[in-house]
Amino acid sequence: MPAPDNPPVPQRELIRREDAVLERIAAIVGRHSIPKGEVHVGDDAAVLAPFVGETLISTDVAVLGIHLDPALFPLEDLGFKALASAVSDLAAMGGRPRAAVVAVSSPPGTDLEELHRGIADASAITHCPVVGGDLTRSKDVSVAATVLGETPGRGSVLRSGAKPGDVIFVTAPLGRSSAGLRRRREGAPLDDALVVAHRRPWPRINEGLAARHAGVHAMMDLSDGLALDLHRLADASNVGFRLSDIPVAPGATQDEALSGGEDYELLITTANIERLYAIYANRGLTKPIIIGEVVSDAAERTCNGGPLERLGWQHQL
Amino acid sequence: MPAPDNPPVPQRELIRREDAVLERIAAIVGRHSIPKGEVHVGDDAAVLAPFVGETLISTDVAVLGIHLDPALFPLEDLGFKALASAVSDLAAMGGRPRAAVVAVSSPPGTDLEELHRGIADASAITHCPVVGGDLTRSKDVSVAATVLGETPGRGSVLRSGAKPGDVIFVTAPLGRSSAGLRRRREGAPLDDALVVAHRRPWPRINEGLAARHAGVHAMMDLSDGLALDLHRLADASNVGFRLSDIPVAPGATQDEALSGGEDYELLITTANIERLYAIYANRGLTKPIIIGEVVSDAAERTCNGGPLERLGWQHQL
Repeated sequence: MPAPDNPPVPQRELIRREDAVLERIAAIVGRHSIPKGEVHVGDDAAVLAPFVGETLISTDVAVLGIHLDPALFPLEDLGFKALASAVSDLAAMGGRPRAAVVAVSSPPGTDLEELHRGIADASAITHCPVVGGDLTRSKDVSVAATVLGETPGRGSVLRSGAKPGDVIFVTAPLGRSSAGLRRRREGAPLDDALVVAHRRPWPRINEGLAARHAGVHAMMDLSDGLALDLHRLADASNVGFRLSDIPVAPGATQDEALSGGEDYELLITTANIERLYAIYANRGLTKPIIIGEVVSDAAERTCNGGPLERLGWQHQL
Repeated sequence: MPAPDNPPVPQRELIRREDAVLERIAAIVGRHSIPKGEVHVGDDAAVLAPFVGETLISTDVAVLGIHLDPALFPLEDLGFKALASAVSDLAAMGGRPRAAVVAVSSPPGTDLEELHRGIADASAITHCPVVGGDLTRSKDVSVAATVLGETPGRGSVLRSGAKPGDVIFVTAPLGRSSAGLRRRREGAPLDDALVVAHRRPWPRINEGLAARHAGVHAMMDLSDGLALDLHRLADASNVGFRLSDIPVAPGATQDEALSGGEDYELLITTANIERLYAIYANRGLTKPIIIGEVVSDAAERTCNGGPLERLGWQHQL
């Protein structure tokens, strides 16, 4: 989109500069091979070969200073987190990533190449090629990542499908991301294992696909903390829950496991425990962890017998 | 995506407030009917029924103060323009819009409902339902709109397909948007016809579909002005051009027609003029206007015999 408030003066130098930036960025994010018949960066829109099954779409924004403290983390982490958190939404539906577009806003002087290196890293590990984007000026540095996925075979897994009697699982112990943020604030290096868990969340794509293939009833990703996200799943499904156990990751606290955000583990409910275990084992995935059960009374929301308060990260709109 | 720098305190009030805002926004953008089997706002990702043909995706950001002067235009125009400009990219491929997601960043106190009314208006006129979004805090007000389209039948029309001998068309006289901005700065009311052309660009979806069905060779939308965009089409196609005539919209100047941005008319090249005319006439579309021809020498870029300088709106990255 053009900027009509710029004067319409001859701008050969600006055009050259913008083209050069775009070329360097395209080289950073365009390292994937382009399937025959597809058109990625460069035309009005990207063209993708037909999808298999349903099409999934999700968008996530990360703003420097809100979602990432620039005093503690490199700029590339902002790009990584924006794209990874969007891909995690596809994983939560049991989807397979197909493509991403990234809209980057930034003030003059921002290291756009560093920012796009983080985007490219997340794109590479999730096999979700960046096929287009937009760059614009703004006061903030922000990345809006939109991802597309597909669900071959069975349909997408919603958060509204939980049924009384379902067993509730998470894909791993919780709290690593919050613990990593705390450790970084205390001075831990960027390559500390928990700090890396915070900086470089790994979307549970394979786990989501396996859960979908196992016919689970409901699924979502834990982006805002179990103690908020589980309520959301229960609200959507009109059910309650009885938690027996919260698996706390080594190095994390109980609070971090319960209400820390950005773990991006999956929350799953199913009536068929053995099938879920079998498919995970068959695919070499870590065994998911039982944390409780779904109950029919939507007002019953307990952990170890006491009420589970609705806590977690909130945006201040 | 959560905001890890917020304190993890009990936030029942914030949760209530965010939920209330989201509900009001969902009511504004969710006035379309949801096809059977689809899931729009509310789950981790939106789920769309299978697409027909290729999938198209494009993203566009609009930032208040950069793309829209808040002293001259209402906030809802920002939402309208972001979505309309993204949909125009689908039109430029000959695509049919399927769905949009919008990521909105804004400081506290922003009238998010007004902003989303503009988004909803653009969604309604383009038949491109908003199926998801994200809201976050930031210093700027910005809207990142991402749209999905499909191309049933023949494949998408690229900007790289122009061939020597092709006739070059535009879908209407140019310069209306720039003229409208100028008139608004001179004090014209918001409902002045040219001001409306600037505030409420109408993506040429039907014209794009008709051009694709007519088998045109190349197409793009005029977002940054003919004198820049035509060079881009020629660059992508490795051809030159000889312009004979620039159709200037009533009320616009020659300069506005040549290098004013945001007209969102389509630029088309084809070897089969009669077929294009016939399909446009058959569908009740305004007859497209011949502006020149494509030549094989990529260095020949002329208008009325003189060189056409590469001018237009540029981002300052």
